[in-house]
Amino acid sequence: MEQNNKINDQRMSLFEKHQPLLNKAIEALHRRTFFAAFAENPNPAIYGETADADGQAKFKGSLGKKFVELKQTDEADWAGQEESPYLQDALKISYPIFSAGDLVGKSKKAFHVWRKVTKEQRAGILVESLDRVKARFFEIAYATMHTTGQGFMMAFQASGPHAADRALEAIAAGYEELNRFPNAVLWDKPMGKFNLQINKEWRAVPKGVSVVIGCSTFPTWNSVTGIYGSLITGNPVIVKPHPGAILPIAIFVSEIQNVLAENNLDINICQLGADTFNKMITKELAEHEDVKLIDFTGNSQFGNYLEAIPGKTVFTEKTGVNSVILDSLEDVDKVAANLAFSINLYSGQMCTAPQNFYIPEGGIKTSSGVVTFDQFAEKLVANINSLVDNPKAGPFVLGAVQSDRTATRVKDAENIPGKVWLKSRSFVNPMFENARVATPVVIEVSADKKEIFSKELFGPIALLIKTKNTDQSIALAQDMALHQGAISCGAYTTDATVREKIADEMALAATPVSFNLISGIYMNQNAAFSDFHVTGGNPSGNASFTNPEYVNKRFTWVGHREPVKA
Amino acid sequence: MEQNNKINDQRMSLFEKHQPLLNKAIEALHRRTFFAAFAENPNPAIYGETADADGQAKFKGSLGKKFVELKQTDEADWAGQEESPYLQDALKISYPIFSAGDLVGKSKKAFHVWRKVTKEQRAGILVESLDRVKARFFEIAYATMHTTGQGFMMAFQASGPHAADRALEAIAAGYEELNRFPNAVLWDKPMGKFNLQINKEWRAVPKGVSVVIGCSTFPTWNSVTGIYGSLITGNPVIVKPHPGAILPIAIFVSEIQNVLAENNLDINICQLGADTFNKMITKELAEHEDVKLIDFTGNSQFGNYLEAIPGKTVFTEKTGVNSVILDSLEDVDKVAANLAFSINLYSGQMCTAPQNFYIPEGGIKTSSGVVTFDQFAEKLVANINSLVDNPKAGPFVLGAVQSDRTATRVKDAENIPGKVWLKSRSFVNPMFENARVATPVVIEVSADKKEIFSKELFGPIALLIKTKNTDQSIALAQDMALHQGAISCGAYTTDATVREKIADEMALAATPVSFNLISGIYMNQNAAFSDFHVTGGNPSGNASFTNPEYVNKRFTWVGHREPVKA
Repeated sequence: MEQNNKINDQRMSLFEKHQPLLNKAIEALHRRTFFAAFAENPNPAIYGETADADGQAKFKGSLGKKFVELKQTDEADWAGQEESPYLQDALKISYPIFSAGDLVGKSKKAFHVWRKVTKEQRAGILVESLDRVKARFFEIAYATMHTTGQGFMMAFQASGPHAADRALEAIAAGYEELNRFPNAVLWDKPMGKFNLQINKEWRAVPKGVSVVIGCSTFPTWNSVTGIYGSLITGNPVIVKPHPGAILPIAIFVSEIQNVLAENNLDINICQLGADTFNKMITKELAEHEDVKLIDFTGNSQFGNYLEAIPGKTVFTEKTGVNSVILDSLEDVDKVAANLAFSINLYSGQMCTAPQNFYIPEGGIKTSSGVVTFDQFAEKLVANINSLVDNPKAGPFVLGAVQSDRTATRVKDAENIPGKVWLKSRSFVNPMFENARVATPVVIEVSADKKEIFSKELFGPIALLIKTKNTDQSIALAQDMALHQGAISCGAYTTDATVREKIADEMALAATPVSFNLISGIYMNQNAAFSDFHVTGGNPSGNASFTNPEYVNKRFTWVGHREPVKA
Repeated sequence: MEQNNKINDQRMSLFEKHQPLLNKAIEALHRRTFFAAFAENPNPAIYGETADADGQAKFKGSLGKKFVELKQTDEADWAGQEESPYLQDALKISYPIFSAGDLVGKSKKAFHVWRKVTKEQRAGILVESLDRVKARFFEIAYATMHTTGQGFMMAFQASGPHAADRALEAIAAGYEELNRFPNAVLWDKPMGKFNLQINKEWRAVPKGVSVVIGCSTFPTWNSVTGIYGSLITGNPVIVKPHPGAILPIAIFVSEIQNVLAENNLDINICQLGADTFNKMITKELAEHEDVKLIDFTGNSQFGNYLEAIPGKTVFTEKTGVNSVILDSLEDVDKVAANLAFSINLYSGQMCTAPQNFYIPEGGIKTSSGVVTFDQFAEKLVANINSLVDNPKAGPFVLGAVQSDRTATRVKDAENIPGKVWLKSRSFVNPMFENARVATPVVIEVSADKKEIFSKELFGPIALLIKTKNTDQSIALAQDMALHQGAISCGAYTTDATVREKIADEMALAATPVSFNLISGIYMNQNAAFSDFHVTGGNPSGNASFTNPEYVNKRFTWVGHREPVKA
C-alpha cells in the first residue's frame, strides 16, 4: 500500500511537471496558430555543444550489434535487415523478434494494467518519454538518414522535434477528449412533487490492443501520432515498423519503456514488434481477433485491405496524387524556384510532394505578361537543375532514394509517353559516394492522357499537364483527389474568383490548398497544432492528424447509473 | 441583392431567436445533468386545452387520403401500406413515391445550396422546425400509436418531446463541432530575424447526400438524430422511413420543408423517400455512388450489410441481447415490480428492453434472507400478471404488437426448451378490440444452453437463466454484449466489490449498466443530453446519440493557407 502510494505520487509528480506544457498544447490545438514545444533547429545552444557528435557516435556504435535497449524479454530470435540508402550497405543491427501471438498476448495482459492508470498519470508518463527522446534527437536523425535516405536537416526535424510535436499534439487531443464529459454527476429531474435523482458516471473505455504499422520514409513522424494517440486513451500499443526503417522508432519505444519501468508499469504497454522482409508479421497482427485498433501509413492496396477487416478501428494514410494548379501569378521565377524545391526535396519521397502540374495551353498570366507553357517548363527545369547542381544545397535537399523500387520507377518514368523535359540523372553526394540518388524527371503529358497521370508515381517524378484552361485544371485536380486521393495541393492565382473556385472545389475533394507559395515555405510542409495532416475525406487516407475523431475513435464512452437512495 | 439581404436578415433573426436555447443545449451536452427543452407531459396547460382533441382529429382526417403536406414535386406515384396494430386495418394514407435516382439527384443539387448556408442560419432554421413540430406533438402521437402499436403516453413522449430533445441534442452537438476550430487565423512563426506569416482558414466541408433509414417501432426518435445531425453539418437528407411507419416522420419532414421554403431554400434539402413493402428502395439508395452518409436503425443483418458498403460513412443501431444480473438486493418485491414493468413496457419492443435474466442457482441475497430462483421467478410472473390484468394500466403499458412476425415469435417462444413460467396470452384493450396484443412469455433456460439465449428474441420474451453464481452471470452478460451486442443492462447488487466488477466488465463490453433500479425509473429509459444511446462499442451499433463522433464524421475539416504578402 505504501509502495502504491509512493508510485502514485511519483506518477502524479510527472503529470504536474508536464501539466503547463500539456495545457499550452491543448490551447494550441484550438488556436491553430504557430506552436512548437521542441526546437526544430539543431542548434548547439539549444541541444548542447556535443549533441551532434554524441548522437552520431551513438548511432555508429549501434551498427552491427544487437539493439539491447528494449526491456522486452523472451524473444524468439534476433534479426534486422535495414540498409543505408547513403551507403547502400546493411546496417547489421538486429532486433528482438517475437511472434504475432506472443506480442498480442503480452499486449492484452498489459491492457488491463494500462487502462486502469489515470489519464493524468498516462499524460505525465507520455510527455516525460518525449522529454527523454529529445535528448536523442541527433541519434534519431542519423538513424533516420541511414534508413530513409533523408538529408540530415529533414531527418533531424521530421523524426525529432516535428515528430515529438505531433506526438504531443496527439497526447493533448486525447487528454482533452478524455476530459470532455464529467466522471460523475447527479441527474436531478423535477417531477412536480419530488425530484427523480440518479447518480451517473461515465467511463472512457479504451478499445484494446493497438497495432501501429510504420512506413519506410517517415518512420517516426508518421507513427508517433498513432502510438501516443492510442496510449493516452488507455490502449497498449504494438509498434510494427517497416523492416527497412526500424531504428528511429525503436529509440522512441525504448524511451517509452524506460519511463514505464521507472513508474512500475508493465513495459509491454508499448512493445516493438520488428520483423524482416522474409517473414512479415503485419497481416497476422492486423487480423488477430484481439487487435482492435490499427494505424497504418503506406500503399493504398494494403491500406484498403486493412480498412476492410471487420471489427477493427483503422486509421490510414495511403497514397495520393498531389496537384499544382497554375493560373496566374506575380513573379514566375519565384514560383518556379519554390516548386523546384518542392520537387527536389527528399527526392519527391514525401506524401505531400507535388506530382501533377496543370498549366493552361494559353499559358500563365503574370504581372509581366503571359508565360507560355514551354517557358514555364523551361524555368522549372532550370530551377531544378540549379538546385541539384549547387553542391552546398542539392545533395542535402535531395538526400538519397530509400528503395531500389523507387529508383527503378524514376528510371522507367522516361518511357512515359510525352515530351521528356528533364531526364533523371545522378549526382555526387560529397559525403556518401555510394549513395542511391536520382534527380527529378519532368515529363509533359496531354490532359487527355488521364490514364498516365491518374496514379501516384512515388519519387522525383513531375508531370506537366497541358490543359485547355484553368477550369479544366481545377476539374482534373479535383478528379485526382476524389478518385486517387490527395494530401496536398498547390495553386497559383491572382484572381479572387478563381481562388475561391479552387478553394471550394478542392475542399469538396477534402484537399487542403496552399496558395501562392514562394520563398521559404513549401506545399510539402505541414505544421503540428495547425495543419491537419491528411483530411480523412478522400482516398488518400481515412484519418487526420490530429482531429477529434483521431482520438475519439480509440475509446468508448460508457455511462452507468444508479438512483440516489431515498 | 436587396432580396438576398432580406432573406439573410430573416434567417439570422431565426438564429437569434433560438440562440439562447441552443447555448443551453450545448451547455447541457457537457454537464449531462437533467435538461429537456420540450415538456414530456401531455399537459393541456402546456400544450393547449384542445391540443389532444385537435391532434386526434387531424390524424383521423389524414386517414384514407394523400399526404399532401410535403412540398416535393414530380412524384412518380402515390402509395402507402401502413397498418394500425390497434385496428389491424390499413391506414390507407398514400405518400408521393420517387425513384432512388430522382431523390439522390435532387438531393445532390440541394447539397450545393445547403452547404453554403452558414452554420448559424442552419441552426436557426432547424430549431425553428422543432418549434413547428411541437405544435403537432399530439397528432404525431396518434400517428405513432397507429403505426408502431405504442401506448399513447409512450407515443407522445418518444415521438414528440423526447425525439425533439434528441434532435436538439444533435443540432447542438453539430453546431459545437462546427465551431471547434477557427474559420481563419494568422500563423506567425518566429524565424529569428523575421516572422514567417501565413493566413490560414478552415472549412467544415459536409460529406454530401445523407440517407436516414427508419425503423417500424420508433419512427421519429431513432431517425431525427441522423436527420438533424446531417442537416446541421450541411448535408442534405433523404428520409427513408420504414414502409410500416411513415406518417410520424413525414410530419417532421413537412415542417422542415415549410421552414426551408419560408427561408427561400430548396425544399429538397430534406426529402421524404417513402416506399412500399413490395418495392423497397433502401438498397438502391444506400448503394448509390452519390450517397455518402447512411443512418440506420433495424436488424443486424441489414445493418452489417450497410456498414460493409465501401466509401460510405455509416451510423447504425442494430440489435442486441440485453441482460439483467441479479446478485443481491434489498426489497425483492420492488425489484420484481420494476423488472415486470420493463418487460411489459411496449410489449418488449424497445431496443433497451431486458431479455436475459441471470439468477444464481443459490438464489438472490436480500435484506430479508435468500430468495430462491423459483421464488424470484414466481414473483416476477406475479408482477407481470398483475400489471397486465390491471385494466387501468396494463393495456396502455403493453400497447400493441407492431408486426405479425413479432406476434408469431412470441407464440413460438413457448417451444423454447425449458420450463415455461408464463405463457403469452391475450387481453382486452378497452379502446381497441381488434388490437394485436401479446403478453410476455417467461421461460427458464439453463446457463449451458447458450445457443438458446445468445440471440435477440424481439418482443415480450423473458429468459430466466440459472447460473452457477454471479461471476458466471457477469461473464454471460459480458459475452452476450461482446458478441451479440447490448444496448442496456440491469444489475442488482448491494455488494460494492460485485458492483465494481459488473461496472468494469460491462464497460469493457461497451454496455451501460443501470444499477438497482426500483420505483419509477426503468432500464429501458434513456434521456437526451445525459445518457448516450448505444455506445458504438459493441455489435449492437457503431454509433452513439450524441457523442462528438456522431456529428464529426458527417463533415471534413479542410485547411487552406496563403502567405501574408510582404
